[in-house]
Order: sequence, then C-alpha cells, then structure tokens
Amino acid sequence: MLIFKENTVLYADNDKEIQGVEMEKCETKIGFITVSDRASRGEYEDLGGPAMQAWMAQALKSNWTAVASVIADEQALIEQTLIEMADVEGCSLIVTTGGTGPAKRDVTPEATAEVCDKILDGFAEQMRSVSLQYVPTAILSRQIAGTRGSTLIINLPGKPSAIGECLEAVFPAVPYCIDLIEGAYLETNDAFIKAFRPKHAIKTS
Amino acid sequence: MLIFKENTVLYADNDKEIQGVEMEKCETKIGFITVSDRASRGEYEDLGGPAMQAWMAQALKSNWTAVASVIADEQALIEQTLIEMADVEGCSLIVTTGGTGPAKRDVTPEATAEVCDKILDGFAEQMRSVSLQYVPTAILSRQIAGTRGSTLIINLPGKPSAIGECLEAVFPAVPYCIDLIEGAYLETNDAFIKAFRPKHAIKTS
Amino acid sequence: MLIFKENTVLYADNDKEIQGVEMEKCETKIGFITVSDRASRGEYEDLGGPAMQAWMAQALKSNWTAVASVIADEQALIEQTLIEMADVEGCSLIVTTGGTGPAKRDVTPEATAEVCDKILDGFAEQMRSVSLQYVPTAILSRQIAGTRGSTLIINLPGKPSAIGECLEAVFPAVPYCIDLIEGAYLETNDAFIKAFRPKHAIKTS
Repeated sequence: MLIFKENTVLYADNDKEIQGVEMEKCETKIGFITVSDRASRGEYEDLGGPAMQAWMAQALKSNWTAVASVIADEQALIEQTLIEMADVEGCSLIVTTGGTGPAKRDVTPEATAEVCDKILDGFAEQMRSVSLQYVPTAILSRQIAGTRGSTLIINLPGKPSAIGECLEAVFPAVPYCIDLIEGAYLETNDAFIKAFRPKHAIKTS
Repeated sequence: MLIFKENTVLYADNDKEIQGVEMEKCETKIGFITVSDRASRGEYEDLGGPAMQAWMAQALKSNWTAVASVIADEQALIEQTLIEMADVEGCSLIVTTGGTGPAKRDVTPEATAEVCDKILDGFAEQMRSVSLQYVPTAILSRQIAGTRGSTLIINLPGKPSAIGECLEAVFPAVPYCIDLIEGAYLETNDAFIKAFRPKHAIKTS
Repeated sequence: MLIFKENTVLYADNDKEIQGVEMEKCETKIGFITVSDRASRGEYEDLGGPAMQAWMAQALKSNWTAVASVIADEQALIEQTLIEMADVEGCSLIVTTGGTGPAKRDVTPEATAEVCDKILDGFAEQMRSVSLQYVPTAILSRQIAGTRGSTLIINLPGKPSAIGECLEAVFPAVPYCIDLIEGAYLETNDAFIKAFRPKHAIKTS
C-alpha cells in the first residue's frame, strides 16, 4: 500500500513486489535544479529552488515528489544532473533556475539543448514575451525548453519573482505536453492555474 | 497555346516548343504534404491536405497546380518528398500539415530544417503567436518555415481549423518572400487575403 | 590628457604612457558594418551605415568612437570584419545593416551566428515583433543578435527607416547586456532612449 502525504511518499513495508508496481504507476517526480556558482558553494542562500517548489505545490493537485539539486554553472555538471533526473529518477518535469543570461558563466541553455531530443521554441518566446511586460532586459534571457524522452525540461530565470511570472505564462500547456511525450498525467489546482487539454485528452476518474 | 481552367493546366497539342517555353513561365506549382501515420495507412481520412488546398484556392488569383502527397511520420520520407517537390516538381511553395508537436513520432520540423538552406524564424513566431489567441497549447507547436533554393516551405499544424488561422497570419508575406528567392510571382484574391509587396516589387500587367 | 569632442578622440601629445592607460579605460568603440554588394562597389550610396551612426549619436551620452566598414554580401568577409572589430578593435557593440532577408545573397545572420559564442533570440523576436506593426513582411527578416567575448553584435535591417524602429525596440536592454559580458559601461541620453539596469548595476559618478 502506498500512502501519499503532502508530496512525500511513505512506503508500507509489506508486499514489496506490488508496491513496486504501484510506485511505477503512481509516483510523479519533478526535478528542481538551481544553477548558481555562489549558491552551490554556500555563499548565497538558494532562493530560486524553494520558489520553484513552492509554486509547484500550489499549482499541482496530483501527488508528486521533489528531486532537488543545487549545482555550479558548469555545463557538463548541468547536463549530467539533467540526464540523471530524466533517465534515472524518471522525472516527468524538470525546471531549472539560473544561468540563462548572456554572461560567460551562463550555460544552462547550452546544457539543456545538448541533452534534449526536441526544443520547443514556443516556451522561450512566451516566457520572454511575458517578462517583457516587467523589464525590457527580458530579451537578454536565453531560457529554453525541450524534451528528453518522456521528460519536459524548462529553464526559468534566476530571479525568484520572475520564476512565477514565467511558470504562469507556460504552465497551462505543460500537462498536455507531458501527456504527449508519455510522462505522468498531471492535474492542476484550477483556482491557481488551469491546465488546458483537448477534450479527448482529459481523463475522468 | 495554354488554357488554364480551375487550377488545371490543359495543353494544346500544336507547337510543342513554344508550349514548353510558356509552361516554364506560366506554371506555378504548389506542394501539399500531409504527414500522418494513420492517414498514410488509410485508417484516417486526410482532412489537412484538402483544407490546405481549399484555403489556397481561395487565396490565390494566379493560376497554379497542386502536387499532393500523404505520407507517414518518417523523417527520411518527409525529406525525400520535400526535395522532390522542390527540386524535381519545381514547386514555389510547399505547405505541410502534421507532425509538428512534441511527441516522439513528430519529426516534420526536423525534416524541414534538414532540407532548407535558410530558416525564417519569423513565420514560426507569428503562427504560434496567433494560435495562442485560441489555445495555450500553441506553444507546443514546433512548426518552422524555410527556403530551399527557389522554394518556400511552411509547416502548418495538423488540426484543419488551425491551418487557416496560421496561413492567414503569415500569407501576406509569402508572395514577396517567393519573389526574393526567385520563385513564381503569386497574386492574391485581395478580398480574401492581401499580399504585401514593397512598391518596387509590384508587377503591373 | 584625453579630450573627447563629438565622438572623436583627440590625443594630447604628452605623457603617452598615462594616455595609453586612460585610453584603455575611456575609449568605447562601436562598430558599424554595412553589408551590401552594391554599396560596396560604389553603385549605391550607403544610407544604412550613416543612419545607424546618427541614431547612436542621439542615443549615447557616453563618449565613443565609430569603426565603420562597407562590405559585400560575402559570408567569409562579414565574419572576418566582425572578428576584427570585436577582437582587434575591441568594440563593445557592433551593429550591421543589410543581408538579413531570405534571398540567396543574404548571409549576414549566418556570418553572425558563426562568430558568436551565444545567440540572444530575444533580440530577433522583439525586433520582428515591432517591425510587424509596420509591414507584414517583417517575418521575412532573419536578423539575429549574439555575443562574442565582450562584444554584443546586433543585425539590423537594410532599410534606413527600419533601423531606428529596431534599435528603439531593443536598445533599452543593450547597456546592461554589455555590462554582463564585461564590455564598456554605456550611458544613454534618457530623453531619447532610456537604458534599463537593475539597481545594483547602476554606477553613480
């Protein structure tokens, strides 16, 4: 038996085989990667990671567990973390914060492009378009989104306040996107943010 | 002598040499590719192909002939069909429908990028921007446009209703684009859709 | 001692060492490249280059010197000119005009992409978006922007009137972008165009 409680999976200790099978079905994992030299060295409190998790906790009605990591702005390390969260952890969604600007150390989009099968330019366009309502420097963001197998990866800005603006702009399309790549079926708290699915794609319980 | 009637070229049987020369000048070909595993196997009626042709028949005042194909979501096959329509058939414009989403079998943009000399990002941006007025999942579309020699290739969505929305959004720029790559001179039915050309590029008869 | 007068650096002839050091600190160079077969052969007056310089003279309060070049639509030549202006001249900003359309000879974006470390898609999107308010053929522009080391490179349209429209659309983000790549600190004439910088990035004298 599996008991979900506030985004934490509690395991019952009997019948491991069945439990394994149910896990396969029920557990939705979401990856959160903070890319920041200073935060990874502890010189700086990671605000972006918690901001992404807090937003997701409000947005999702489905149960999910968080896989989180705070790493330096090193392309190889970002790629490795994305691959691990996608291929080993089986995250349906990975969001990153930081490293999307034009500075030399900003390499999150490069790492993301490298590990993705398909790039979805519409996410980047829509996030920049919304951010432009706040600051003209939104055009400097190189954040992208793409898919790796059944995982959707989305780069978010480093600034915590901008994280919510960007997620709000693209999240209505996220659950259906994950359906199409055969990831988990995500349900949203419609009062906070409402996922859009074509009628034929809506599961009724 | 050449007689055009409802987008069909009828050949007069005398003076083949002159006819050949006029053909060269007069015949405008437009390619229509439906990319769909199910439609190509006959499990599904192709609605996208006819929708694209019906739209074009309303939009163009110039005479043209259609070259149409319904093929599976196979990248090599899509590339081969695009190359044939561009290089052998000499189409000035090729429109595709289907295969632009994030799913594994969706490879139309990959095939298009592979055969194009130049990608015109403005088409994709504008089509997504207009589609976003209808559904938030418009950001999932990876449709692109580009040129191969004197042929303009435009990916359109699979959904018939979205085909018209996208064509309406970009078609005013299509005839001048084809002028610039030295394809056919297309004239539009201005009551339906009006092509924009800088003054110096307008031919008067 | 250095005397700046109307964007021209006048050198005092004493104390060359100090002068060299101050030069290093004070001199901001901006590159202007006109890409046009006809202008480079003298068959056509270069209007784009002067239009870009005139705009910049109105926009910038900081002192700067212009490095200008009129060249043919040859990819290798454009690349070489960009590299020289960036790496040898040390320009913090290079703007180009011409060669961004879909025609066969239009290769400015290809050359720019080739020499840049990072592409900033937001510039292209924003310029096309603004140009679309004027002409539907704005979607045909393939202009891009990117960074090479501490140099920001921006492609502008060939048409002089469109140059101002595009610069106006993106310039508020340009000075902060150049800060981030460790180029010169540019100050704008706020009555003409106002640079946006986050508070922590504003230098007070």
